[in-house]
Amino acid sequence: MNHPTDSTASTAVSEQQTAIEERLIRIVQQSFADCEDPRLKFLMQELVAHLHAFVRSTRLTEAEWNTAIEFLTEVGHITDDRRQEFILLSDVLGLSMQTINVNNEAYEDATEATVFGPFFVDDAPRIELGGDVAGGAAGQPCWVEGTVRDTDGRPVPNARIEVWEADDDGFYDVQYDDDRVCGRAHLYSDEDGGYRFWCLTPTPYPIPHDGPVGRMLAATGRSPMRASHLHFMVSAPELRTLVTHIFVSGDELLASDTVFGVKKSLVKDFVEQSPGTPTPDGRDLGDHTWARADFDIVLAPADS
Amino acid sequence: MNHPTDSTASTAVSEQQTAIEERLIRIVQQSFADCEDPRLKFLMQELVAHLHAFVRSTRLTEAEWNTAIEFLTEVGHITDDRRQEFILLSDVLGLSMQTINVNNEAYEDATEATVFGPFFVDDAPRIELGGDVAGGAAGQPCWVEGTVRDTDGRPVPNARIEVWEADDDGFYDVQYDDDRVCGRAHLYSDEDGGYRFWCLTPTPYPIPHDGPVGRMLAATGRSPMRASHLHFMVSAPELRTLVTHIFVSGDELLASDTVFGVKKSLVKDFVEQSPGTPTPDGRDLGDHTWARADFDIVLAPADS
Ligand SMILES: [Fe+2]
Ligand SMILES: [Fe+2]
Repeated sequence: MNHPTDSTASTAVSEQQTAIEERLIRIVQQSFADCEDPRLKFLMQELVAHLHAFVRSTRLTEAEWNTAIEFLTEVGHITDDRRQEFILLSDVLGLSMQTINVNNEAYEDATEATVFGPFFVDDAPRIELGGDVAGGAAGQPCWVEGTVRDTDGRPVPNARIEVWEADDDGFYDVQYDDDRVCGRAHLYSDEDGGYRFWCLTPTPYPIPHDGPVGRMLAATGRSPMRASHLHFMVSAPELRTLVTHIFVSGDELLASDTVFGVKKSLVKDFVEQSPGTPTPDGRDLGDHTWARADFDIVLAPADS
Repeated sequence: MNHPTDSTASTAVSEQQTAIEERLIRIVQQSFADCEDPRLKFLMQELVAHLHAFVRSTRLTEAEWNTAIEFLTEVGHITDDRRQEFILLSDVLGLSMQTINVNNEAYEDATEATVFGPFFVDDAPRIELGGDVAGGAAGQPCWVEGTVRDTDGRPVPNARIEVWEADDDGFYDVQYDDDRVCGRAHLYSDEDGGYRFWCLTPTPYPIPHDGPVGRMLAATGRSPMRASHLHFMVSAPELRTLVTHIFVSGDELLASDTVFGVKKSLVKDFVEQSPGTPTPDGRDLGDHTWARADFDIVLAPADS
């Protein structure tokens, strides 16, 4: 780290003081010595090491510690069944993305993973191949198709494909108060691994920023905007479940996605079609424009 | 750290993978580049560095990340005006004590600081010198006296001394539902820096352990018990405010205090007095035992 100003310069710490601080870390780590679960013990001892390192390297003040406690309290109080501010916090610190990185190590040409986000729900409607994910949500119709394969190039039939997205006001169904279910569905790939569906052309949206995480972003000069994206979760037996997005090439937010989810390989062309252009399945869209995108999916082995 | 078992062994991480993980940290830190407050910018960038280091060094699994999110959510939901589970969490990880260490660097013979704890309240009753902090709370009467001085040995008159403690059931007044105020008071040192008061002989108590922090302690084989202690906060103009405890010599919990607050210099003899032993102020305690302890307080300069 650079320490460009006085407010961030390390102060000299005496040997006596250093000994006091290091001794405390040892005692705290030692307090977990009787933990019977070796993984839990390791996690707690590493957590202690890294959090104490933060307090020491920043010479965190008591007022700052208080602010942190108050901030976490607000994050806790705004969190409920529909709003998960702790996930947002993890997201905007890049911790969700780093956890995804660590658990989805690069494997041959397998499709890269990205953040899960807080808006997935478990029992989205089933649609048939060629069905509509939008479910009545407003936005430009978009046809997406592709093939699911493994890293040996073999088609994966019957892969479960979950898709979810915001409407063109930037909201997921669960962000409305009226229990609507739209902008989400699941379908299964055909016997050749192929899939296709209608959805909405993704549009940018802010993460919920009327809470403490939004205030932190504002205080630090950051934008709450996510680059436009369409969520996927793809699973099949013996293959690593893929949680990812596709992004829209040309979106100016690609470089500043607030949750750091963008990966170059996931940026796709969403090609806009003039009104009247015949649709792949003959759907009549009248005088509306529509778009189409291709997304071929490669799943790594489960044990990779 | 030792990595004693497979569940904690580092796995080899490829160069390609390492580059992905390190690049993410740089991008996240860079996202704070426009933060106008240099201290806040530094804190956020350091926080990112240390939290990402934790995720990487532990190869944190997605299930573990989920468990952490759920744990923090529970900590948030149990926290209210009377219960501050985030402070408890900070306490049992030694982070409160480390913050105290960092902000109260060893200075000559100044009395050492320790954790503040969650049970202080702002407007405790005023008592006169020799008055009773107990305010009706149950326990063995205890006489505490001493002198407040600065590090040049000069008495500090009119120092404000806040004292608070649990009753002999191990509860602070604010842990009861009936709005009682007891076991807390403030008084002022006399013109020679002297002070004296009645209170209760401190007894051990568990931190509130019916919530997520208590479950974490149980899961990791730790006790929720605090060593017996009496809280002090002492302030006077131009001197560093001292937040500390005194502990009871001989208490078997001194070595395992669950918030790591014990410092050798703060362990005092609480000398038990037989029934009928004359009290310092002539108070008639009938056939009850009582105790007495001396605690001389040395305050560092405010700018130390
Ligand atoms: Fe999203
Ligand atoms: Fe206490």
